[in-house]
Amino acid sequence: MTPSEERVREGFLAQGFMRTLSAELTHVSEGECWISVPFSEGVTQQHGLFHGGVTATLADNAAGFAGYSLMSEQEQPLSVEFKISFVAPARGERLEARAKVVRAGRRLKHVQVNVYGVDGDGEALVGIALATIASTRSVQHRSLP
Amino acid sequence: MTPSEERVREGFLAQGFMRTLSAELTHVSEGECWISVPFSEGVTQQHGLFHGGVTATLADNAAGFAGYSLMSEQEQPLSVEFKISFVAPARGERLEARAKVVRAGRRLKHVQVNVYGVDGDGEALVGIALATIASTRSVQHRSLP
Amino acid sequence: MTPSEERVREGFLAQGFMRTLSAELTHVSEGECWISVPFSEGVTQQHGLFHGGVTATLADNAAGFAGYSLMSEQEQPLSVEFKISFVAPARGERLEARAKVVRAGRRLKHVQVNVYGVDGDGEALVGIALATIASTRSVQHRSLP
Amino acid sequence: MTPSEERVREGFLAQGFMRTLSAELTHVSEGECWISVPFSEGVTQQHGLFHGGVTATLADNAAGFAGYSLMSEQEQPLSVEFKISFVAPARGERLEARAKVVRAGRRLKHVQVNVYGVDGDGEALVGIALATIASTRSVQHRSLP
Repeated sequence: MTPSEERVREGFLAQGFMRTLSAELTHVSEGECWISVPFSEGVTQQHGLFHGGVTATLADNAAGFAGYSLMSEQEQPLSVEFKISFVAPARGERLEARAKVVRAGRRLKHVQVNVYGVDGDGEALVGIALATIASTRSVQHRSLP
Repeated sequence: MTPSEERVREGFLAQGFMRTLSAELTHVSEGECWISVPFSEGVTQQHGLFHGGVTATLADNAAGFAGYSLMSEQEQPLSVEFKISFVAPARGERLEARAKVVRAGRRLKHVQVNVYGVDGDGEALVGIALATIASTRSVQHRSLP
Repeated sequence: MTPSEERVREGFLAQGFMRTLSAELTHVSEGECWISVPFSEGVTQQHGLFHGGVTATLADNAAGFAGYSLMSEQEQPLSVEFKISFVAPARGERLEARAKVVRAGRRLKHVQVNVYGVDGDGEALVGIALATIASTRSVQHRSLP
Repeated sequence: MTPSEERVREGFLAQGFMRTLSAELTHVSEGECWISVPFSEGVTQQHGLFHGGVTATLADNAAGFAGYSLMSEQEQPLSVEFKISFVAPARGERLEARAKVVRAGRRLKHVQVNVYGVDGDGEALVGIALATIASTRSVQHRSLP
């Protein structure tokens, strides 16, 4: 594991929301990050599929860490914005977002993400996203105790 | 409570993911929906702020229900896509998304959403989003038991 | 040329704005469309590069025609929305947008587009876009004479 | 006219593409910019309405100059990305984009834009957009003669 991969894993483990989702970091390399969430009642919308917010969360987070994997030690990732299109119903045993940095500028990383619904039989594309991740040196911490 | 507001509340209560987030439906009217989530360790990113995925989830969901409030009894909302810009660190006692339908076509609703970090002292805009919600009559149910 | 390719070419030729840009339809097939614009002073921004609006126009239009290539004879394409990220300065002898339908629903087509700056030495990615194209049977005509 | 408004007007006049569109800068103030284009055959799509690329171009450009109006003398605007939703057919005697900076960070400006179709009888919203504009000190010039 390279130092940058190790930093991605540490950052991932420090996110309370990933624990809430029982999310797993399934792949990290330079400019790439995959995150997976298992299906459960706790991540559903009203028809029993994965909630669109979960699909979006995985896309956003995989993009952020894909960008982070290319940053220097002094830098932290900051999600500037993202857009996601929901192209098919999000079903399966798990949902997996696969992010890849398309263009890495010094301050801004442009990231493409595909999200798949995965089960024993195979996988299906459920979401496609584009994200902009900034490098920042002044991290904002929470103000609440 | 009008019939459409009642349907929004029923749909909201049927979403397992909203229970996971301890989310609350704080306002519904024709073409509008607000959703709020209290701060806790379970919704954080690595610096102790609200996770961007939570901000995005609230924006997406408030948009979907704002669109749903304008649909007929036979129709269900389907998120086609959304885009969110993170304009400030998401902190506060709670996060609240406020969605309003800007243009309601027969099949597509265009929705604007502001997300605020709220605490005792006031509120701050943390995210702005645009979403497209489709009306559908053929709902996809989960394939998992 | 298949009937659907022929319809794409006819639609393209009927767009006054494409003539203004000296745009050329460089490739059409089922679910794909490429459009190219030559560099000239008339398409520049203030630093002499291709204007971002030209990059965006090509992405939008290539996406629309890629979607159109998959529609039935009674249907017309309608751009619902698109998002574009500008990943590098848009320079070259010409700009070319290459669109591909990622998922074709009955009513909505989801399209990915790459835009390249091309010159004698090669090509460089300058923009990436995601677009949603609707099929419609009731076309809106201009109200002006 | 303040120095920043004057810089916006100079930048606008230096864009060949705005001349091609016969575009006019109709309003500039701190954090705001409006741009208008008259209807003509040269800006149409295949049904005689304003081309979506024109709507998008105005949104992108008004956003860029709204951001520029808040920058220091050493800074230039760079469009990072934008998203636009087409909410109604773009018709009228002219099209006008009205951009307003929602949040101005040191490096990134978040801008909301409404685009209207305007004629003698009134105006109608045809597009809504969100854009991210970066401040840069290293401007990229064209490589072509």
